Amino acid sequence: MMIEISIVNHLIDPHQPLPTTLVGRTGAVAEFSGLVRGNEDGQPIGGLEYEAYRPMAEQIMHTIIEDLGHRHPCLFVRVIHRVGAVAVGEAAVYVVACAVHRAAALGLVGDFLDRLKQDVPIWKTGTLGLAGRPLPPSP
Amino acid sequence: MMIEISIVNHLIDPHQPLPTTLVGRTGAVAEFSGLVRGNEDGQPIGGLEYEAYRPMAEQIMHTIIEDLGHRHPCLFVRVIHRVGAVAVGEAAVYVVACAVHRAAALGLVGDFLDRLKQDVPIWKTGTLGLAGRPLPPSP
Repeated sequence: MMIEISIVNHLIDPHQPLPTTLVGRTGAVAEFSGLVRGNEDGQPIGGLEYEAYRPMAEQIMHTIIEDLGHRHPCLFVRVIHRVGAVAVGEAAVYVVACAVHRAAALGLVGDFLDRLKQDVPIWKTGTLGLAGRPLPPSP
Repeated sequence: MMIEISIVNHLIDPHQPLPTTLVGRTGAVAEFSGLVRGNEDGQPIGGLEYEAYRPMAEQIMHTIIEDLGHRHPCLFVRVIHRVGAVAVGEAAVYVVACAVHRAAALGLVGDFLDRLKQDVPIWKTGTLGLAGRPLPPSP
């Protein structure tokens, strides 16, 4: 299983090509984009800010995917997570899994997202106002 | 829930824009592409041929998605299914679901793919050889 993990501070491009070695072997491509919604705790917002403990976050994501690959055998998995300010409508995280069969591709993506929230040191650290400026933390 | 269904006899473009009304409301975009693999029953192939009973297939896909939307509330679902000759590496089917939360988007896509195989009158009707020409049916 090929694994590509990146943590970036710019817009995620979900249309990056897949490795050409996958052609003919891959029957299922499952993708997930987690987008920032326009309200947080009922208040309209302009975006969210994310921080990561980067070397550890990348290593843990790698380990989680290798672990999940035993149950959901995939050929290729790519994860891109943003840090910094992410505006409403933009993706904070993008995952793609390629497999022979659909259950493995969809299963790996779903289980990875559960583990990401629980186990990976990436946090929402702030909220951006509608003008894109940081808001004070709620009391 | 907005639903877009199409059955096409040309390459599927998975990068068609999503409706702009979804921005800010959508937190989860789940996508699935079902690609033709390079072998069928252990023999190398050049592609597959699909046929649909088109008006009924579109209507049934619509009904399935409305039904699944009760359990997996989504804002928007688009399905594109190809008919005719589909070469190895190309998508025979593409599904995207947008929802507030990830469980609904992933759940609808997974359940829809199960129902598609069972209930929708779209069939693999032939196999293309490596030169892209139809092969005789296996004995």
